[in-house]
Amino acid sequence: MTLHSSANRTPASPHKPTTAVILAAGLGTRMRSNLPKALHRLGGRPMIAHLIETAASVFDRIVVVVGPDMPELAKAAQPHPVVVQEERLGTAHATRMAEELFGDGDVAVLYADNPLITAQTMRALLESRAQPDTALALLAMHPADPGRYGRVVTDGQNVQRIVEWKDATDAERAITLCNAGVLCADAADLRRWLAEVKAENAQKEYYLTDVVALAAEQGVVRYVEAPEQELAGINSRAELARAEAALQTRLRETALEGGATLVAPETVFFSVDTVLEPDVTIEPNVVFGPGVTVRSGAMIRAFSHLEGCEVGNNAVIGPYARLRPGTVCAEETHVGNFVELKAVKLGKGAKANHLTYLGDAQIGARTNVGAGTITCNYDGVFKHRTEIGDNVFVGSDSILVAPVSIGDGALIAAGSVVTQNVPPDALALGRSRQINKESRGRMIRETLRAKKEQG
Amino acid sequence: MTLHSSANRTPASPHKPTTAVILAAGLGTRMRSNLPKALHRLGGRPMIAHLIETAASVFDRIVVVVGPDMPELAKAAQPHPVVVQEERLGTAHATRMAEELFGDGDVAVLYADNPLITAQTMRALLESRAQPDTALALLAMHPADPGRYGRVVTDGQNVQRIVEWKDATDAERAITLCNAGVLCADAADLRRWLAEVKAENAQKEYYLTDVVALAAEQGVVRYVEAPEQELAGINSRAELARAEAALQTRLRETALEGGATLVAPETVFFSVDTVLEPDVTIEPNVVFGPGVTVRSGAMIRAFSHLEGCEVGNNAVIGPYARLRPGTVCAEETHVGNFVELKAVKLGKGAKANHLTYLGDAQIGARTNVGAGTITCNYDGVFKHRTEIGDNVFVGSDSILVAPVSIGDGALIAAGSVVTQNVPPDALALGRSRQINKESRGRMIRETLRAKKEQG
Amino acid sequence: MTLHSSANRTPASPHKPTTAVILAAGLGTRMRSNLPKALHRLGGRPMIAHLIETAASVFDRIVVVVGPDMPELAKAAQPHPVVVQEERLGTAHATRMAEELFGDGDVAVLYADNPLITAQTMRALLESRAQPDTALALLAMHPADPGRYGRVVTDGQNVQRIVEWKDATDAERAITLCNAGVLCADAADLRRWLAEVKAENAQKEYYLTDVVALAAEQGVVRYVEAPEQELAGINSRAELARAEAALQTRLRETALEGGATLVAPETVFFSVDTVLEPDVTIEPNVVFGPGVTVRSGAMIRAFSHLEGCEVGNNAVIGPYARLRPGTVCAEETHVGNFVELKAVKLGKGAKANHLTYLGDAQIGARTNVGAGTITCNYDGVFKHRTEIGDNVFVGSDSILVAPVSIGDGALIAAGSVVTQNVPPDALALGRSRQINKESRGRMIRETLRAKKEQG
Repeated sequence: MTLHSSANRTPASPHKPTTAVILAAGLGTRMRSNLPKALHRLGGRPMIAHLIETAASVFDRIVVVVGPDMPELAKAAQPHPVVVQEERLGTAHATRMAEELFGDGDVAVLYADNPLITAQTMRALLESRAQPDTALALLAMHPADPGRYGRVVTDGQNVQRIVEWKDATDAERAITLCNAGVLCADAADLRRWLAEVKAENAQKEYYLTDVVALAAEQGVVRYVEAPEQELAGINSRAELARAEAALQTRLRETALEGGATLVAPETVFFSVDTVLEPDVTIEPNVVFGPGVTVRSGAMIRAFSHLEGCEVGNNAVIGPYARLRPGTVCAEETHVGNFVELKAVKLGKGAKANHLTYLGDAQIGARTNVGAGTITCNYDGVFKHRTEIGDNVFVGSDSILVAPVSIGDGALIAAGSVVTQNVPPDALALGRSRQINKESRGRMIRETLRAKKEQG
Repeated sequence: MTLHSSANRTPASPHKPTTAVILAAGLGTRMRSNLPKALHRLGGRPMIAHLIETAASVFDRIVVVVGPDMPELAKAAQPHPVVVQEERLGTAHATRMAEELFGDGDVAVLYADNPLITAQTMRALLESRAQPDTALALLAMHPADPGRYGRVVTDGQNVQRIVEWKDATDAERAITLCNAGVLCADAADLRRWLAEVKAENAQKEYYLTDVVALAAEQGVVRYVEAPEQELAGINSRAELARAEAALQTRLRETALEGGATLVAPETVFFSVDTVLEPDVTIEPNVVFGPGVTVRSGAMIRAFSHLEGCEVGNNAVIGPYARLRPGTVCAEETHVGNFVELKAVKLGKGAKANHLTYLGDAQIGARTNVGAGTITCNYDGVFKHRTEIGDNVFVGSDSILVAPVSIGDGALIAAGSVVTQNVPPDALALGRSRQINKESRGRMIRETLRAKKEQG
Repeated sequence: MTLHSSANRTPASPHKPTTAVILAAGLGTRMRSNLPKALHRLGGRPMIAHLIETAASVFDRIVVVVGPDMPELAKAAQPHPVVVQEERLGTAHATRMAEELFGDGDVAVLYADNPLITAQTMRALLESRAQPDTALALLAMHPADPGRYGRVVTDGQNVQRIVEWKDATDAERAITLCNAGVLCADAADLRRWLAEVKAENAQKEYYLTDVVALAAEQGVVRYVEAPEQELAGINSRAELARAEAALQTRLRETALEGGATLVAPETVFFSVDTVLEPDVTIEPNVVFGPGVTVRSGAMIRAFSHLEGCEVGNNAVIGPYARLRPGTVCAEETHVGNFVELKAVKLGKGAKANHLTYLGDAQIGARTNVGAGTITCNYDGVFKHRTEIGDNVFVGSDSILVAPVSIGDGALIAAGSVVTQNVPPDALALGRSRQINKESRGRMIRETLRAKKEQG
């Protein structure tokens, strides 16, 4: 390798498989956590899952570098290959752990604590590297507070070098273009540069940033600017909360653009996979866990919590409704306050409006489930199913002891304990007769009060 | 009509009936909705309802211009006259649809998507028009981002012309005073100008803005500046959400000024008609639907949801209480968590503190409704009433099958199904006796576990 | 006392007991409240309590000056001595009410409506006063909007005088350093200056600010700058809400720094004494009342409300769980939706997941409390206890009529009313047998519909 060796630079290889190396070995000391940093959750799922999903849409192959004793993280990376960095000797060292899996195409190095980087940015990085004479492309940003980020020194167009904050002159510190650490180069080049990086610094660590200078000796170093929101690292719980807020803002804007009414967008929390059709209304204070679809015309009222469920056209859910995984509320269903549905199919126009728990159940069309109804779906060991037909009237405070089935058009008297199947159109009763004992109410009260007075 | 015809301008007619023409024919394509834009809700009611209410407090007459196939919107405009703009040929065309209803006084043209315009601003517009020599008055604003709004060109005091963004010179684009579209003129003048407006533009539409130039030929054109919040159009769900936020900010400030404590104002959602007396406390995350009055000394605890109800002095509601229309909680009542009241009169000092549904009921003073109590007020066809006297003790998990009445001082044993009336001071029981079967608990458990092991 | 009497200034007396005089006589007219201003709540407790707690950590003695007819405020000040300012004649007059309790050390005058002033700021004030030649030290701030605050005129280092807004020249009004009213001086000096203050102003009141000029005649007057958030007075409900927001921001930052994940920090409301161990996760919309401790690994899900309780390691609470005072959830417990626990000890791994009220109860390890379970702990006069052993299975919708105890390994059939103790491993049943009446469901429905048609 000679100085000014741009003639020797490896040409971009758009047809060779590209590889993303994700550095995820960080402990995240500032998180004050026993959990590896990459497993902290954003939008309801681990940071690493966001990054892997995005990278998988852009790169041909993914390799994840984890630290020792991180079996859960290695599991979260599946089915992508995982390599372990046994000693923490810096980012260049971590990247080298993956070098046998670089392949012979372009390799980008990403960070588990930049989970919100977009596919668009990743593609721009690859395209920048694919330009003629380009030895390396890196991502840069203009953060609101450049603080102690390394500065990107350019000749106005291309990168000349990265200067670390502590080594920077005042003039260099005045530069607002900052290094995000993410870079992309040809596999063979990167392997060679990594071998040359030295740990000649106070921490005795091998820094990936040092390859930029080596690349600059060999060819053009380009940069792609991306928003700070994508590239700001997540190193503390406060930064995690800010990233969550940025993600939620994106998701809320998307929902509004898609034709949903959010009465108070800032109080609605989405998952990345929430699907809202047009003309859905979401009242304040609603939380969407993963896997929710809401169809056109439906309304999700205040204080509702939905996970893994589908809400049909013109259904009204809440306030204070909790829909749990496996629940499908057909069109025109009503689910009211303090009602929990778990793995329930609620037929068209069916209602469960007050203080009810239904689990592992099928409810027919137009059936009315009275206040305080409870399915006993668990016997302490097994879960059992409740099947209720169409046009059934389940009286208030009924107990449905599963497995049990109730035929179409049946009527369950309020307060019944239903342990046997009910035929269609039958009336089921399972409750005691009322007895009134004259004056006994007063006597009990007087006795209690007398006791109280005696102390 | 001659140039410099100010001598001919129609004098302001303060004693002739004024008319507000509300243009509401817009489909609101950017809303991505099947609902006419004017029917989207703000503060819990359609945008058009806000505007009609405000306009009705200022103008003598209101006319609403709707599009074809908008029967719900026409209904919402009642009892005000409605005219239909069958073809969408622009704002001047829409205004002409109403010209037979202009009368002979001043006419202002308002927009359904400016629902937060205040009566004060409307009055200022009328007053401006009433000034001597004034042919026309319009509303203008200084938006934070003037963007592509038409610019208001003035001579320092009065309006010379409106210039559309696309036709504006750089100097004109630098003007920050923007046209809000709202204007006011004498009926006869307006009719005459409207007839002169031409559709000579790319969209082949008749623009109301064009009357400003015609008015300027005839007399002085004045402007009244109003805040952007009142005049920014609502054309998308994001703009609807911003308008809602602006409205809620107004309502929260009013509540605080009136002497209510809002622990976290940004988490409380009001309706425009919410009444809070001084020394009310509202904890975080409370939603007020329409028609709520809260008396002095009452506290609404976190996560509560109130609609159409009155809360008496020193009552404590919530957390997690839902009061539905027709509910009146007298002074010193307590309504606790996971309790729903619908059309309930709760007597002084009465309590319903846990997991209860009361509907269509009257509860006497100092009565205690135990946890898990449910009124069965609906038999699938009719709703029935429950009457409970004073000083009643309703044991937990009781079921009150309406119609039923319980006398003063009665005692309902826990878990009873009450189907008959209970005399005063009586004890009502309606539950089964307990049987303990020795070792059977263990046997059942062991059987279940054995089954599980067998798979 | 002579002009230029700095030689006579009383030396700082660090070893003599220091005294904080808290002025709390204000009615707070702008609060529009019947409650004395100092009793309005911040972070769940009266403003005066915050100030007393902070002052007690810095000063040797505290005296609270209250207005007439404020017995509740006097009580809140206990055990600190209280003096009453019978007539409202200004802050200097109020301070004089306490002069017999000044002692002979340094005296600082604080205000009940500056409850967020920190111990650090109080100490800085004392230290400033302790500097040589210092007659008086005061607190100043640079508010975002200096408005009508009195301006602090300095010689660049020390205070020359305070000038009230209404008396200030334009040049003085341009000063952004504002007087916060808080000051500190030697007891004897302060007594002497207070005696010299005159009520020569429009309000005929004696202003404490006037002692600054008297002090400046005698020695150096220093100032300590503190953030506006600590010193901005709370005079209206809006200002109270802003102070609450500032306090919550502090508490949220502390929680994040301590290693808690707050998915949406702005939706979580803490008390000043909330304890979160590292690796706790708090979902959106959670309210912490006083006295809550959450152990490492626990998760508090959305819409939960906790007061006076302890949540053990790896427990999962909510969504929609309410834990009330006296509740201890051991490690690995689960408390689910619409569940209220009051004074409950929940054993390791025990579960109460749905629509349940448990009060005054002890629940054993691994016990499962079914949906809809209710303890009847109140007979209208007395509260009684429920004791449940380990490995018990409480069937859904059971009613446990206290006092009652259930042995280890027992099984309660769903829908039972348990009024007697249940031996270990027994099965308890207390419910009626089900009867199915053929076709009766249809008949009842048809009868009701016929009635409806007849009107």
